[in-house]
Amino acid sequence: MQTLTLSLQRGKTPLYLQIYAALQQEIRTGRLQAGERLPGKRRLAADLSVSVNTVDTAYGMLAAEGYLQSVPRSGFVVCSVAAVPAAAAVPPSAPPSASPKSSFLYDFTTTSIDTSLFPFKTWRRLHQNVLSQQPDLLNHGERPGDEVLRRAIAAHLREHRAVSCGAHQVVVGAGMEYLLGLVARLFSGACFAVENPGYSRTAHILQNNGAAVRFVELDEQGMSVDALSKSGADIAYITPSHQFPTGVTMPAARRYDLLAWARQAPGRYLIEDDYDSEFRFDSKPLPSLQGMDAAERVIYIGTFSKSLAPAFRIAYIVLPQHLLARWNEEFGFYSCTVSRFEQHTLAQMMENGQFAAHLRRLRLAYRRRRDLLTDALRRAFPDITLAGTHTGLHLLAQLPGCDDADILVQTAAQHSVLCSSLSSYDAHAPRQTRAQVVLGYAGLSDDAIASAVQRLSLAWNGAGTRS
Amino acid sequence: MQTLTLSLQRGKTPLYLQIYAALQQEIRTGRLQAGERLPGKRRLAADLSVSVNTVDTAYGMLAAEGYLQSVPRSGFVVCSVAAVPAAAAVPPSAPPSASPKSSFLYDFTTTSIDTSLFPFKTWRRLHQNVLSQQPDLLNHGERPGDEVLRRAIAAHLREHRAVSCGAHQVVVGAGMEYLLGLVARLFSGACFAVENPGYSRTAHILQNNGAAVRFVELDEQGMSVDALSKSGADIAYITPSHQFPTGVTMPAARRYDLLAWARQAPGRYLIEDDYDSEFRFDSKPLPSLQGMDAAERVIYIGTFSKSLAPAFRIAYIVLPQHLLARWNEEFGFYSCTVSRFEQHTLAQMMENGQFAAHLRRLRLAYRRRRDLLTDALRRAFPDITLAGTHTGLHLLAQLPGCDDADILVQTAAQHSVLCSSLSSYDAHAPRQTRAQVVLGYAGLSDDAIASAVQRLSLAWNGAGTRS
Repeated sequence: MQTLTLSLQRGKTPLYLQIYAALQQEIRTGRLQAGERLPGKRRLAADLSVSVNTVDTAYGMLAAEGYLQSVPRSGFVVCSVAAVPAAAAVPPSAPPSASPKSSFLYDFTTTSIDTSLFPFKTWRRLHQNVLSQQPDLLNHGERPGDEVLRRAIAAHLREHRAVSCGAHQVVVGAGMEYLLGLVARLFSGACFAVENPGYSRTAHILQNNGAAVRFVELDEQGMSVDALSKSGADIAYITPSHQFPTGVTMPAARRYDLLAWARQAPGRYLIEDDYDSEFRFDSKPLPSLQGMDAAERVIYIGTFSKSLAPAFRIAYIVLPQHLLARWNEEFGFYSCTVSRFEQHTLAQMMENGQFAAHLRRLRLAYRRRRDLLTDALRRAFPDITLAGTHTGLHLLAQLPGCDDADILVQTAAQHSVLCSSLSSYDAHAPRQTRAQVVLGYAGLSDDAIASAVQRLSLAWNGAGTRS
Repeated sequence: MQTLTLSLQRGKTPLYLQIYAALQQEIRTGRLQAGERLPGKRRLAADLSVSVNTVDTAYGMLAAEGYLQSVPRSGFVVCSVAAVPAAAAVPPSAPPSASPKSSFLYDFTTTSIDTSLFPFKTWRRLHQNVLSQQPDLLNHGERPGDEVLRRAIAAHLREHRAVSCGAHQVVVGAGMEYLLGLVARLFSGACFAVENPGYSRTAHILQNNGAAVRFVELDEQGMSVDALSKSGADIAYITPSHQFPTGVTMPAARRYDLLAWARQAPGRYLIEDDYDSEFRFDSKPLPSLQGMDAAERVIYIGTFSKSLAPAFRIAYIVLPQHLLARWNEEFGFYSCTVSRFEQHTLAQMMENGQFAAHLRRLRLAYRRRRDLLTDALRRAFPDITLAGTHTGLHLLAQLPGCDDADILVQTAAQHSVLCSSLSSYDAHAPRQTRAQVVLGYAGLSDDAIASAVQRLSLAWNGAGTRS
């Protein structure tokens, strides 16, 4: 174990993100080597004069991303990661470096998908047709994305999510991260509220594009108007269909409260990230927040990363009509960042009904998987509490007698199962959420789920996990 | 003809860009309708209290992009453009709007490519193989771009452009516009010098990402250290291989002067945009500026838009070693914005030599085209002066007796030939460049070139064009 010297700055970037970035950098550049033990959370927290939870959060993020691994009675140990080799150590003619390898057999992270569900045959055929029949697509396309795709997206959203929009309001871009950055710059000078716990990249992306960010604590219905008002933010980023990571679906009454908040002052907006709304299993989904809004206060963001695959980098936003002129003035000259051939392949798949059919198959497969996982967990842990199972592609698990989910994450890691604690998505402090584990199941096949839960049973029913 | 009311702000955005954006917006939203006449340059300049050249530049950009068309004795007339329909006019269920249609038969703009030269057979086969054999590519890839492509790019640049780099210095992204935006944010607070005349989007992108921009006049060798020093900028964006649009190749001595300037103070950098360096015809190219730099002061930007096609949106930057840590800290968490399947298809094409073979074929085809164009122009206009013909995919033409190239652009447009004047790339004022026309020939087939020059002959040898 070595002494870490990290320089932190009290300022706009949260301390946990600074620690996360600095350690990631140490690991990527090889200054921290695979197998090396990191200092204990308490010690590092004392050295850096930060809270233990701050260090905990940074370690949790690094573990969830495969940079660190938790080892029993050793704390966190550096994994073998060589995606970005050390700058000074690699000469221009450096040999190929190895890809990062996961030491985990089962991956319950929330970013994986099961590649066996992808409709390769359909995609290949459509893509070949587009390549063969439309050579003109080699040239520059329409700047907000080609209209054929924007039309298909608008029609899909109107039908399935009750989003009120036309193709002219849709902007296609290479991933939610890219589009959210543009939104941040559109409202330069505004202050953004983000959900806490939440998707940690959201705050990072907003800050990275010059925005001020406030973390707003959630209650059992999601973000409250009270907490939002206290934050002083102008714009709130929320995930009302399926809050990430808590799994809460925001009730209609709370939605109307937030919409009323947005109407109360000019410059107030709600950014609705509807990242996995396609996957609701047990009831008819609530319509999108955007569809409930009569005052053009909602910017809707969606992605094909879950419904198709992350590899294509296709996401979109739906802008209120009155923001279109401003958007075009600021960003109208940017070329669309998505490959035209893939735009047209997807558009054809949506137009001929194959995308909707694929979604139905996915929904069935993921529901079966959710049922397998919840059944297996309940058999292995009769007293387990599960939450957020009704929709989306992850759930929360809590075991009585264990009030620190990080211990569960660590013992799971010892059994080669990768998962994360709810508190690792929390920018602040200990809360009632510390006891919950987040299990994403989109990346695991039906067979893998049974084996993974067997390992969790060995891990969590073993000695010392629960008090 | 209607009265235009545009509100301009004296500030960081150049006035010509504000006028350009406002008029584009008026046209896109349908407030200015197809066929409508715009006010004369002098009248609008007087109304807005700006110089005639400012209006001229804005009109020139709009004409080059197909928003306006010049009509003899009528001035500029709005073209039919419906890519982004009017916000308020289109209900959510709006019918599909027509794609923008060009009224030009021959397109000498600099952004087109000839789709018949694209190696469809090779690309289709490789892409199918990648889709069939690597289903794992559906998941998230490496954040700076997958290593297989970064390795291939680094090897290509070392061999063909003498760029000194390893794969770990390469970042792949969805277009130069996207990557330049990240560079602007990496150096937030810095002041950027851009070439004048130059690629108008560069300044816009830098400003859009919060950077201050100074336009620096060029001499016959490109940007001078003297002019650069006077600008007070920290970072200079230059196109030394083939200045856009003047076609000047920066001599080695000037390059060393600029590298010395960059070494003189910390925080000084040169951004080398090598956008079409693959296409040098008459002599061995100078190595890249980056390869001449021993002090890590050059950020190299390249694109596959010319060598492959704009549709794929694949560009890259090569970062100096000492900036890697800072880059990773700021942007290391962003997912790569390029489709993984297309990344791997291109990587295979580069690795197996097919990309190099394709480039050789392109170079031959474009050289033949350049010869056809220059021969045809010289036959049609025995006293024509051509410049910038040795490299790249466009050239400059000047006719004696005509000192206003906009007249040539306008009469060409009347004969359905689209081209632009050098002064339309000039942010400032009248200069010696006002007499030159820019002709990009990458998008025209051999046959089309002969017919296009016939039309130019009718246009430019007609009455009234030359004094």
